[in-house]
Amino acid sequence: MNINDSLNDIGRKSLVASNQVKNFTSEEKNNLLTKIAEKINSDKELILNANQKDISIAADSIDKAMLDRLALNSDRVDSIINSINDIVLLEDPINKVINKNERPNGMLVERVSVPLGVIGIIYESRPNVTIDASVLCLKAGNSVILRGGKESYYSNLQLVTSARNALEESNYDKNIIQFIETTDRNAVDYMLSEMSHYIDVIIPRGGKGLVKKVQDKAKIPVIGHLDGICHVYVDEFADKDKAKQVVNNSKLRRTGICGAAETLLVHKDCIESHLPSIINILKSGGCEIRGDEMITKNYPDLIKANEDDWKTEYLDSIISIKIVEDVNDAIKHITKYGSNHTESIITENKENAEIFLNHVGSAIVMHNTSTQFADGGEFGLGAEIGIATGKLHARGPVGLEGLTTYKYKVRGDGQIRP
Amino acid sequence: MNINDSLNDIGRKSLVASNQVKNFTSEEKNNLLTKIAEKINSDKELILNANQKDISIAADSIDKAMLDRLALNSDRVDSIINSINDIVLLEDPINKVINKNERPNGMLVERVSVPLGVIGIIYESRPNVTIDASVLCLKAGNSVILRGGKESYYSNLQLVTSARNALEESNYDKNIIQFIETTDRNAVDYMLSEMSHYIDVIIPRGGKGLVKKVQDKAKIPVIGHLDGICHVYVDEFADKDKAKQVVNNSKLRRTGICGAAETLLVHKDCIESHLPSIINILKSGGCEIRGDEMITKNYPDLIKANEDDWKTEYLDSIISIKIVEDVNDAIKHITKYGSNHTESIITENKENAEIFLNHVGSAIVMHNTSTQFADGGEFGLGAEIGIATGKLHARGPVGLEGLTTYKYKVRGDGQIRP
Repeated sequence: MNINDSLNDIGRKSLVASNQVKNFTSEEKNNLLTKIAEKINSDKELILNANQKDISIAADSIDKAMLDRLALNSDRVDSIINSINDIVLLEDPINKVINKNERPNGMLVERVSVPLGVIGIIYESRPNVTIDASVLCLKAGNSVILRGGKESYYSNLQLVTSARNALEESNYDKNIIQFIETTDRNAVDYMLSEMSHYIDVIIPRGGKGLVKKVQDKAKIPVIGHLDGICHVYVDEFADKDKAKQVVNNSKLRRTGICGAAETLLVHKDCIESHLPSIINILKSGGCEIRGDEMITKNYPDLIKANEDDWKTEYLDSIISIKIVEDVNDAIKHITKYGSNHTESIITENKENAEIFLNHVGSAIVMHNTSTQFADGGEFGLGAEIGIATGKLHARGPVGLEGLTTYKYKVRGDGQIRP
Repeated sequence: MNINDSLNDIGRKSLVASNQVKNFTSEEKNNLLTKIAEKINSDKELILNANQKDISIAADSIDKAMLDRLALNSDRVDSIINSINDIVLLEDPINKVINKNERPNGMLVERVSVPLGVIGIIYESRPNVTIDASVLCLKAGNSVILRGGKESYYSNLQLVTSARNALEESNYDKNIIQFIETTDRNAVDYMLSEMSHYIDVIIPRGGKGLVKKVQDKAKIPVIGHLDGICHVYVDEFADKDKAKQVVNNSKLRRTGICGAAETLLVHKDCIESHLPSIINILKSGGCEIRGDEMITKNYPDLIKANEDDWKTEYLDSIISIKIVEDVNDAIKHITKYGSNHTESIITENKENAEIFLNHVGSAIVMHNTSTQFADGGEFGLGAEIGIATGKLHARGPVGLEGLTTYKYKVRGDGQIRP
């Protein structure tokens, strides 16, 4: 079979499997998830061996950070198992009556949540995504087609095999979870452009290069985000200590996540009052600071920011800082340079906070908290499949609900339309 | 200015206007809608004159049905005004807290409805769409870019002028509503493929040719439907009279709407019990019947259906009829040939009804009612901008809520993420 034929075969099987999983009861789904968790536990040796194989192949060709993302050990496998068990505890998102309307003619119109169908996940070198994504899709009644990065090939394959065995041993269609085994890059192109009659939505998980490719080529709706150029704005009415702590946490708690702040906007009246302690804490955390003209005038030792800095997601210990006139000027900057991900205002002035929350168009807008809270778990969604910055369907952290759609069920007793 | 420059200019202006309209209070929006209704009333002569001009130009080149869709008279203008007043009465869909979650650390996470932004409407010869669509978009806090059919050019232009004058006289940005004045077809291509940074969603309103073009070319999300190949399935446990009345209404009440039934599926045990009276009522209503082999064997005077009939949206007094084994066979046929629009089962057997409602994947699934109820007004949504058969964002009749999205507003008091 050539690649395209084998992908179509996977698509067909996934469609068939989606018709099975969409009708599972909550109990069936939770039992299956538990089975998968047990299987991963009993297959731990196999999984770690497969991961060793990946690491020994990749060791020379990838950097340390990537190697760390790729590596599994007993604790990390346990945390995969724990996250399955956490998802078991979440409320079933399917068959919920979203609203109900009895019409004057007696017809009952219900809007009911249903699974999306078939979800395609394209991801890079984190093997845990294999299971996290599969289990979230399954809990929301969907089948899933996985395409992982080549660095984690053997780990992914073993994890998928364990999960599929759990399905099969429970007498269910193992094709609820499928993995594209070829590492040929054309497979991704074909999946994105030619499989829209099988796949309902594509979720890319990984770096900007991957997401951009998916967004450019996909003829299937994509849920995800390209950039996380997140901003913190320190208003003239900001509490000094909150400003310092929140900016520091937003930037430096973890610099490699999409919710990390990249640009700090500071009210012009805060240059002497708030900025020194912010610069101090950032510097002592090892952060490189790139300031606009106003800032380098006051702090001649800082690097001067250029136009590119306002457009850059550093994902590193670097921050750009700009002085703005007021909250509206901050909003203007965010509208021009932001990526619709997460922005936070630090202020004790309620009016300015409301202006910011209402006028910044991002998926997540915050007042007096760290942008690093941009996460499904932190929002109480239980788990997330990713963060979306588009406007249609799901935005912000996408949890189980984002993996569903709805249909109208209309019940009558012979009503005809006049 | 060349066409592309002038379209970019329209896009920029619409984006600016969307930032005004998104912050209107409910009262401001309703006052504006009322102003528009009043203006259309006072401009009635101008509107009817413009429409006369369209009709005299188009009279020789378009068919009677299209001419009827194009024609305005005093009553039809009044019904445009009435539908504005109906929309005034609808609840404001913006700024609704969809859900709220206070986190253990005291952070308050709210999901709040917000406008989509800029909506593009591409439509054919019904001038009333100009106002209906604009007013729905405005009520949901969006700006709108309209592109109407060339047959209704002068009518559309006058209606838009009246509405824009109402905006301007109220000291608001008239570019909340804009109309693409060129009739150059390249303008539509440019709008669909090059304006994704201005337009958030495209809604096509018109025939299959228009919708297919929009779906094929758009690089912007599209809300709409291509076909309405709706099915009625008469189950072995159907009440005879309900079956007859619902089938007749589903097919013949109005044959030109997307919710009209195109294919009737009949349980094999109903050939002698239910089918004769159904065929009689359809025939007496002037309906052409195309049956499968089983049916033409029993009714030799009927036309034989071929494979194409199961895939055809007649939008006419024609119906195809097929005998099926049971409810699952009916679902199989619908899954293969349906367009995910609206399907109805006629049965007194609750189990079969539930199987049908759960397993048919269409946006609207019905039990014992007419497919012609597939309409936002009939569902209690107040008004609809169209019917969507995709799976993401809005499906079924799309009302004001489908013209909104949401954002997360997170309020804290200095919380940082551990």
